[in-house]
Amino acid sequence: MSYISDTAQFGDNVIIEDDVQIGDNVIIGHNSVILRGTKIGNNVSTGCNCVLGIKPTVNKRMRKTSNLTELVIESGTRIGHLVSIYSSTRVGKNVFIGDHASLRENTIVGDETVIGRAAIVELNTKIGKSCTIQTQSYVTGDTVIEDNVFIGPCVSMANDKYMGAQSYNLKGPYIKHGAKIGNNASLLPGIKIGKETIVGAGSVVTKDLEDRIVAVGVPAKRIGLS
Amino acid sequence: MSYISDTAQFGDNVIIEDDVQIGDNVIIGHNSVILRGTKIGNNVSTGCNCVLGIKPTVNKRMRKTSNLTELVIESGTRIGHLVSIYSSTRVGKNVFIGDHASLRENTIVGDETVIGRAAIVELNTKIGKSCTIQTQSYVTGDTVIEDNVFIGPCVSMANDKYMGAQSYNLKGPYIKHGAKIGNNASLLPGIKIGKETIVGAGSVVTKDLEDRIVAVGVPAKRIGLS
Amino acid sequence: MSYISDTAQFGDNVIIEDDVQIGDNVIIGHNSVILRGTKIGNNVSTGCNCVLGIKPTVNKRMRKTSNLTELVIESGTRIGHLVSIYSSTRVGKNVFIGDHASLRENTIVGDETVIGRAAIVELNTKIGKSCTIQTQSYVTGDTVIEDNVFIGPCVSMANDKYMGAQSYNLKGPYIKHGAKIGNNASLLPGIKIGKETIVGAGSVVTKDLEDRIVAVGVPAKRIGLS
Repeated sequence: MSYISDTAQFGDNVIIEDDVQIGDNVIIGHNSVILRGTKIGNNVSTGCNCVLGIKPTVNKRMRKTSNLTELVIESGTRIGHLVSIYSSTRVGKNVFIGDHASLRENTIVGDETVIGRAAIVELNTKIGKSCTIQTQSYVTGDTVIEDNVFIGPCVSMANDKYMGAQSYNLKGPYIKHGAKIGNNASLLPGIKIGKETIVGAGSVVTKDLEDRIVAVGVPAKRIGLS
Repeated sequence: MSYISDTAQFGDNVIIEDDVQIGDNVIIGHNSVILRGTKIGNNVSTGCNCVLGIKPTVNKRMRKTSNLTELVIESGTRIGHLVSIYSSTRVGKNVFIGDHASLRENTIVGDETVIGRAAIVELNTKIGKSCTIQTQSYVTGDTVIEDNVFIGPCVSMANDKYMGAQSYNLKGPYIKHGAKIGNNASLLPGIKIGKETIVGAGSVVTKDLEDRIVAVGVPAKRIGLS
Repeated sequence: MSYISDTAQFGDNVIIEDDVQIGDNVIIGHNSVILRGTKIGNNVSTGCNCVLGIKPTVNKRMRKTSNLTELVIESGTRIGHLVSIYSSTRVGKNVFIGDHASLRENTIVGDETVIGRAAIVELNTKIGKSCTIQTQSYVTGDTVIEDNVFIGPCVSMANDKYMGAQSYNLKGPYIKHGAKIGNNASLLPGIKIGKETIVGAGSVVTKDLEDRIVAVGVPAKRIGLS
């Protein structure tokens, strides 16, 4: 059953499927598509040509997600243009999601976090509050990012130690509170990055890094304290 | 002349130009655009806001493609949302193409291959069967990828040895059967990567790598057998 | 007040807001959105599903841009599909902008420059004439790129030395005339790259580089003259 507030505003050619909830003062840009089951809180805005509430599809070489629920976007969040967000995901309050970004299913994004332009967040990932995930960064599936983390532009993460050679052994990085990752760094599957630790630009992190250190290089080595 | 199967389903505001063929049980998402000359096989689905069958445009500093044919998408293939695919390209059976991905003209993608979200495949490139090209990877023009290859997320390739200083001397990497490339690795123009060879995350491959080795680092050096 | 030339051609479902100027022989692709205040010169073409003339939005953790003016696209420029371009930006004559690319506010792009597919140019950035910014490259905010510069695919730049720890201390790279940056290189905040200098693929540039040298590695070191 749909609920659409009288105070919501819609651009031209907006498509809203059944069973959608849209709160007060919401603004939906031209040509955007709100798919079945999406719940949008008060004072949310989205740009043009977005697709929100996508159900996953796969081919037979990919893992399948089951038990899907709805997409929930909490109040005050700003979404850019040409953005795609899947169902079974919760975007917190006053989040910013940049143009061309994509969030997969079973993802949680904490309040006031910034997801940069063209950044991609894969499935089963939790991002804390007040994080910055900069432009073009890739947050792989099965990742945990605690609060106040800074992920620089073009950072790359992996979750598949065997690169497709074994099935379903997937684990992304675990990045602790206040850590900062420099631009274009590469993080390997399952590595832990300690609290307030700083990783230099272009570094390749192949092992766990302890709390409050600075690490740089290929592979990343400790060069001091943060 | 167009042929559109009675069993095809179309979202709202779908635009289909003349001279298009659409097979049985095809699903086209809202706001998608199917341009002139596109041939879509049975049981194909596409998401919302896609553009399929694009004719190339250039400015005067770019090379021009001639002798263009149609875009062919074979049966059972799944295409995500906000995807762009050019004419003169053939996408095989049961392929998966993620959201925000782009495939250029004169490209071939083999059956059951997975092209990740926001991955880009440039012109004159051949990708084999059952490959995985992960999220945000960049497959440059004039590249050959054989079957069962794994390209990790954010891998970068180049095809222009002289970086614009000389014209039309373009050659991408040649990646042999079963090779695996770690996330955010960089591959230089014209290099060959051997069968079942593994390249570590963040490595920079500047020379040919033989079959069945493991290579890591900047520049990538052999550290063992795969 | 709007002006739309009689010779302009529009695809289906094109949305044009008030106060837009569109010159002679302009072609606007299906589903594209031209927002208030956009000025498009003669012989410009855009693909499908583009959004042009975007006003910036932010959340409370981001800096705000004021004194916005209109988006101006000069004559002969070709824009791809699924592209987003902000207001207060000037795109020169005969520029090419690839599919999925994004240009922010207060950006200048010089005549005949090529902006690759999915490349992103952030705010307050100036790119010169006849440059090539290849596919998926990231040009951060507060950057200067002089004329005839070549930025390879997947190059990453940063402008925030303190990674969010201090406010508004932002400075991108300064890249001089004719420099060439190899694919997937990382450039740190505020570094200068000299005239006609060449940076190797996958390098991490942490310090200023003088004119006409070749530098490679992590961190990038001089290995010869260009």
